Amino acid sequence: MNIVPMMRPRRLGKVNVPTVTLAHGGGGKAMKDLIDDVFVEAFDNATLAPLEDQARFDLADIAAHGDRLAFTTDSFVVDPLIFPGGDIGKLAVCGTVNDLAVGGARPLYLSCAVIIEEGVTIELLRQIARSMAETRAGQGCQIVTGDTKVVHKGACDKLFITTTGIGVIPDSRVLGAHLARPGDVVLVNGLLGDHGAAILGARGDMALETPIDSDCACLHELIEALLAASPNARTLRDATRGGLATVLNEIAAASEVTIEIDETHTPIREEVKGFCEILGLDPLYLANEGKIVAVVPADEAKAALAAMLAHPLGAGASAIGTVNEGEPGRVTMRTGFGGRRIVDMLVGEQLPRIC
Amino acid sequence: MNIVPMMRPRRLGKVNVPTVTLAHGGGGKAMKDLIDDVFVEAFDNATLAPLEDQARFDLADIAAHGDRLAFTTDSFVVDPLIFPGGDIGKLAVCGTVNDLAVGGARPLYLSCAVIIEEGVTIELLRQIARSMAETRAGQGCQIVTGDTKVVHKGACDKLFITTTGIGVIPDSRVLGAHLARPGDVVLVNGLLGDHGAAILGARGDMALETPIDSDCACLHELIEALLAASPNARTLRDATRGGLATVLNEIAAASEVTIEIDETHTPIREEVKGFCEILGLDPLYLANEGKIVAVVPADEAKAALAAMLAHPLGAGASAIGTVNEGEPGRVTMRTGFGGRRIVDMLVGEQLPRIC
Repeated sequence: MNIVPMMRPRRLGKVNVPTVTLAHGGGGKAMKDLIDDVFVEAFDNATLAPLEDQARFDLADIAAHGDRLAFTTDSFVVDPLIFPGGDIGKLAVCGTVNDLAVGGARPLYLSCAVIIEEGVTIELLRQIARSMAETRAGQGCQIVTGDTKVVHKGACDKLFITTTGIGVIPDSRVLGAHLARPGDVVLVNGLLGDHGAAILGARGDMALETPIDSDCACLHELIEALLAASPNARTLRDATRGGLATVLNEIAAASEVTIEIDETHTPIREEVKGFCEILGLDPLYLANEGKIVAVVPADEAKAALAAMLAHPLGAGASAIGTVNEGEPGRVTMRTGFGGRRIVDMLVGEQLPRIC
Repeated sequence: MNIVPMMRPRRLGKVNVPTVTLAHGGGGKAMKDLIDDVFVEAFDNATLAPLEDQARFDLADIAAHGDRLAFTTDSFVVDPLIFPGGDIGKLAVCGTVNDLAVGGARPLYLSCAVIIEEGVTIELLRQIARSMAETRAGQGCQIVTGDTKVVHKGACDKLFITTTGIGVIPDSRVLGAHLARPGDVVLVNGLLGDHGAAILGARGDMALETPIDSDCACLHELIEALLAASPNARTLRDATRGGLATVLNEIAAASEVTIEIDETHTPIREEVKGFCEILGLDPLYLANEGKIVAVVPADEAKAALAAMLAHPLGAGASAIGTVNEGEPGRVTMRTGFGGRRIVDMLVGEQLPRIC
C-alpha cells in the first residue's frame, strides 16, 4: 500500500510532489499500488475489495427492490476539475445517480473508469476519489468496480471519469419522456443554471464578486418523495447539458404535445440572469446538475410541489408551466411582459466541457 | 437523421469532410443528430431506441440465465485507433465481454461512452460504431445505452471509449483468482503477445515484413465450452495489459501458491519473439486481447484442453504449467535450456496505450 517508490517526483518549488506516470497505466505493480492507494482506499467496500475483473452480486438482493433493472453511463470531462460547489468526482457520482433516479430507479451499484494524464498529482486523484466516496456515502449505492488508464502528457486534459450505474425500478413504476399529456403540470425543484454559471465563473471568464456554487447534488431521495406524492407522475428528467429548454423540447417531441412555461414562475438567480445577459447566453440552456423537470397530472401537482418544497434539495421548487394540445414538439414561454416566445432546441454549442 | 447541415466542413485536399464540432457535445440538436446518425444507426435495437437517460430491462429475463449479476467497466485509449486485426471499437466490445466471461458470466448488456476530440471525422466515428455493432452481433449481448462528449482540439487524442457490461452468472458457477490449488494445471488458449506486437507494429516502431494481427476476440463461447468440459475450473483471467506474467502473479498471490510454467509449452509466435528481442521486451508481459489463462483441476485438464482445441479461438491452446505448493505468490518459468527463472510482476511500464 506504499506507492511512493513507484513514482517519479516532480519538482514544484522546493517540494517533490508524487505524480502519475505511464507506469501507473501498465497493468503491473505500479497500477495495482495506485488503485489500492487511491481508489480502494477511498471506495472501501466488500464488493470492490477482491479486485477481480468484474463485480458480482446476488440477483435476489436486487429483485427485493423491484422488477426492472436500469443501466446508465456518462463520461465527465468538466473543466476545471474543481469548481465552487463540487468537482469532477462529485459530478460523476451525482450525474449517474440522477440518470438512474429520473427513470424511477433506486441506485445500487456504480462503476468508475478513469483516464489520467501523465503528470497529474497523486494528491489530486486522492481528493477526487474521496469526493466520489463522500458523495455516494449514504446514497445507498456503492462503487463496486473500476478501471484506470494513463496516457502521455498532452493526450488528455488531466482527468476524465466515466461512471456507469445499475439501479432497480420498483414494480409498477412507469416514467417516460413520451408520457406527458395535455393538462399536465411542469415542475422544477429550484433555481436553474447555477451549474453552468459556476463553471463559467470558475474558468475566470467572468470576475464574479461572489462565486456562484454549482447545484451538483444526488436527487434520488427528492425523487422518491416526489413519486410518493405523485404516484402517476409521467416524466422526470434531469436538466443537465442543454438545460431546461432542451429537456422541455425532448418531452414535447416525444409526447407529441406543446409545453408552455411562464417566465415569472421559472426560478433563475438574478446574478445568473445578469451573467447571461453580459455573455449573450440564455439561462434556459444553461446546464444544471441538481435540477429535475417533472411532468405530473394536474390533480397531483399540488402534492408534488409540496413534496419537493419539503425537501432540502427542492426548497426553490416551482410549477413553471403546463402541457397543452397544439403543435407537437413546440415549447413556448410567456414572458414577464406578457409576450410569448418560442423556446427552441439548442442548435449550436453553448458551453463546452460543462460536465 | 440528416446531420450534414450541422457540421463545419474541414478541407482535406479538395474534399469537404464532415467532422465533429464542439456543437456535437452541447446536449442539443447537433448532439442528438450525431447520436442518431452514428450510434443509433449502428447499434440499432429496441432498448436503445427510446434514448432515455437509462436503459431498462426486466429482472425476470436476467434471472432466467442465473442467480448473480456481473458488472465490469473499461476505458479504451489505444493508439492507433485502427490496427491490424481490429480497432478501438472491436477492442472495447471484446474487452468488456471477456471481463464478464472470465467471471463465468454470460454477457447481456453493454453501455458505450465516447469522448471525442473536435475535428475527428464523422466517417471515422461511423466506422468505429459499425465495428462495435459487428463485434457484438451474435454474441448474445446488446449495446443498450451510451453517452457522447466532445472536447476541444488538443484536450484528448482523437477518441476514447468506455464500455461497461452487465452479465449473469449461472447458478453454482464459482470462479476466482484465489481458488487455484496445488496440483492444478494452467492452460492458455493460444499464441501470446500478438495484440501488443500488432499495436507496436501499427505505430511504425518496427518495419514488419508481414504485419502481426491483434488476437482481439470475444471469448465467452470458448469459455462456455471450457466450463462445460471442466465444471470445477478454479480461475479464468484474460491476459490483457501486463500479459501472461501479470495474470500468473495475481493468481499466485491471491491463491497463496507457486506457479511454474514451462517455456517450451508456452506458445509465442517466432516473429513476436524476434520482435521482442530487438526491442528488449519480454513477450510474457505483452498484452493479449483474445487469450485467457485457465487454472483447472488436474483430473479435468485433459478435457479442458481438448475443449479449447476444438474451438476456433483455442486452436493454439496449450497446458503451460502447474500450480504447486511453495512460496506464496511466486511464479517461475523452466526455460528451454533447463534453467529456471523468476517471472515477476511488471514493475514499470512496458507499452502505454496498448488498449
